[in-house]
Amino acid sequence: MLADVSGGGGGGGSGSSTTSVVGLALLPVFAAGAWLGTVRLIPAMAPLLERAGIAGVDLNKPGSTKKIPEAVGVVCGLVYLVTLFLYIPFHFDSFLLNSDKRDDFPHEKFVEFVCALLSICCMIFLGFADDVLNLAWRHKLWLPTVASLPLLMVYYVNVGSTWVLVPPFMREWVGGETINLGYLFYVYMSMLAVFCTNAINIMAGINGVEAGQSLIIAASLVILNIVLSFMGQSDHHLISLCLLLPFCGVTAGLLRFNWFPSSVFVGDTFCYFAGMTFAVAAILGHFSRTLLLFLAPQTFNFVLSVPQLFKIVPCPRHRMPRVNARTGLLEPSVVEVPLKSTSSLGLWCIAVARMVGLVRVVESTDERLVVTNFTVINTVLTIAGPMHERNLVMCILFIQVVCSVVALALRFGVLFV
Amino acid sequence: MLADVSGGGGGGGSGSSTTSVVGLALLPVFAAGAWLGTVRLIPAMAPLLERAGIAGVDLNKPGSTKKIPEAVGVVCGLVYLVTLFLYIPFHFDSFLLNSDKRDDFPHEKFVEFVCALLSICCMIFLGFADDVLNLAWRHKLWLPTVASLPLLMVYYVNVGSTWVLVPPFMREWVGGETINLGYLFYVYMSMLAVFCTNAINIMAGINGVEAGQSLIIAASLVILNIVLSFMGQSDHHLISLCLLLPFCGVTAGLLRFNWFPSSVFVGDTFCYFAGMTFAVAAILGHFSRTLLLFLAPQTFNFVLSVPQLFKIVPCPRHRMPRVNARTGLLEPSVVEVPLKSTSSLGLWCIAVARMVGLVRVVESTDERLVVTNFTVINTVLTIAGPMHERNLVMCILFIQVVCSVVALALRFGVLFV
Repeated sequence: MLADVSGGGGGGGSGSSTTSVVGLALLPVFAAGAWLGTVRLIPAMAPLLERAGIAGVDLNKPGSTKKIPEAVGVVCGLVYLVTLFLYIPFHFDSFLLNSDKRDDFPHEKFVEFVCALLSICCMIFLGFADDVLNLAWRHKLWLPTVASLPLLMVYYVNVGSTWVLVPPFMREWVGGETINLGYLFYVYMSMLAVFCTNAINIMAGINGVEAGQSLIIAASLVILNIVLSFMGQSDHHLISLCLLLPFCGVTAGLLRFNWFPSSVFVGDTFCYFAGMTFAVAAILGHFSRTLLLFLAPQTFNFVLSVPQLFKIVPCPRHRMPRVNARTGLLEPSVVEVPLKSTSSLGLWCIAVARMVGLVRVVESTDERLVVTNFTVINTVLTIAGPMHERNLVMCILFIQVVCSVVALALRFGVLFV
Repeated sequence: MLADVSGGGGGGGSGSSTTSVVGLALLPVFAAGAWLGTVRLIPAMAPLLERAGIAGVDLNKPGSTKKIPEAVGVVCGLVYLVTLFLYIPFHFDSFLLNSDKRDDFPHEKFVEFVCALLSICCMIFLGFADDVLNLAWRHKLWLPTVASLPLLMVYYVNVGSTWVLVPPFMREWVGGETINLGYLFYVYMSMLAVFCTNAINIMAGINGVEAGQSLIIAASLVILNIVLSFMGQSDHHLISLCLLLPFCGVTAGLLRFNWFPSSVFVGDTFCYFAGMTFAVAAILGHFSRTLLLFLAPQTFNFVLSVPQLFKIVPCPRHRMPRVNARTGLLEPSVVEVPLKSTSSLGLWCIAVARMVGLVRVVESTDERLVVTNFTVINTVLTIAGPMHERNLVMCILFIQVVCSVVALALRFGVLFV
């Protein structure tokens, strides 16, 4: 179920490794360089963002009126792109420096890299535009679709296969072990990009949570790629690794400033950048469905958010927890639900979520309900009680680590059994 | 002198045409779509820019306090990228639709397209960041260098040749018709990108001049590419054409709103976008030195600006002409030059420029000179006298048309004779 059927159709695709050993050995150096670049550049660029008015007060720091620069993900994105621009020639150095091998240059691998960077660059640009211009929700769905086009192109040209393994329990029904999804597979990949970018973006709002979860997911994917590479799978895992390791570098650099108490905010720019990097790495690494295992918390958060995202239940502009100025602890944020104007589906959603313990009804009168917002972060507070912001982030990140470990176990379990 | 030595070294490079006829036939349709997209999207996005505070008053409209949205080039850039993302599969449709030809897919051409778009996307992103954050001058030189890296990579891999034709009058001195510039050629290409982006950017400041000059240059380059394609030169001119025709579309769309009296400003975003598109088209089309002929007005403007850009002569923040509120006509803007603190080189520059008639000394005392600013736009006003803004733009664009015609004549003259 979890492994794509790779290779197959088109031109270059899989096969023997084209990767330079020197290139791979240098990859951690470049990742460290990306970390250093981020750590140096954020303090230099943050005042520019503040001066341009891209800054806001941290709502969860009682009494603080200090403006904190937003959209600092733009610095990470910039460092990431420069790092990979400089790295790519090293990845192919055995072909470039050896004139005998020049004619065998693996253009199909090169183009995968460049398309990946084009998709990511496009998404950083659009994320920054969103941070500056506050685009509408309908744009947020279109933008990742547009940015994923280069990736779909290169998948079509290089891999071309749209056959996927059918999960065992569905095989009898489908009538085979594999099924050709055809163009639906491209729709699926595009939707994956849309999902990833938005899934990171809506599990946000407390210090360090966006960069923290992204770092853990990226590190887990790095482990996945390294193990699969050693298990002799062809070099699409190496391309994925080359995209993810520098990402770990810039994200670790960002986390240093975004950790509680944050001196910078990451912005939509970073969330989009992270989501697109995961989508690109997964599609080029041929583990797009495995990625969803690693994104279990984000997926759960998305499903939980659906009633509010689709306005079945009222949705306030911000859904992050609120600090209690007296105790200094975070408490779940709430939304007022007028009983008259809410559909019975909406009330049913609230009832179910309440029954399972995902939300809590804080106040209930004949005219209205006051309910905690439908997000994982609020649910953690609902279950565990008010918490210090730093502890809450640790809690969320712990959940992410557990999910990543389970995902790795499942992935290798499926392979070994 | 003017033609690059193409083909030569590496992998894919030149050779027989890989272009689909259907793809080429659809190119004007895509360009028209790009025009339509720009015309539709600018009115929709302009209020967002204004709301985000990216707007300013038109200083040359006396009495007007209306804020005009800036950085509208970001809309053009977005439409351009989407257009080319959608177009590329059509360019290769003969390979993609015909499964027999799938294995011969010209990855080296595909990667040229994608690298071109990556460089352009990167530059649009950086231009927008510049408009929002007001980056320092030193950044403006670094950014295009970074953005040109993908292009240098693909040139290295695909063409590889760094041999250039030596101008006839230098051949005896060099000792041959061609010379290998080696890594210097990459430095040259990178500097070309830096030059193009900044050259458009500093010949700016009156309604319609940035988009107007860019449209004329792009249209001239389209003619050049079409003629060279018909003359049987290999298909790198077609790639250049594919990049330039949609650019003409979005620029024509932008010009409609940016023409006197402007309802939007183009911003650094557009100037960088235009400059990078020219550099990319010229490098992939192997006519990077011919490009400089078409950029004669910008080159002249750059050379004229050097004393101010390098602070040999004082440089105010804005150097565009100023309106005379009484007559409604534009007059050259001026800069005050304190005689004591200005170097003798600076005074010499002023004396020479004055002698040739490029600047005028408006006021002269024992302590200071008041001189018109060192730009082509001011020089036109110095020579022709005060002028209405619309006439001044027409004048500048006429100069651009003349230069383009001369460039085309020279280019084909060199080929034919």
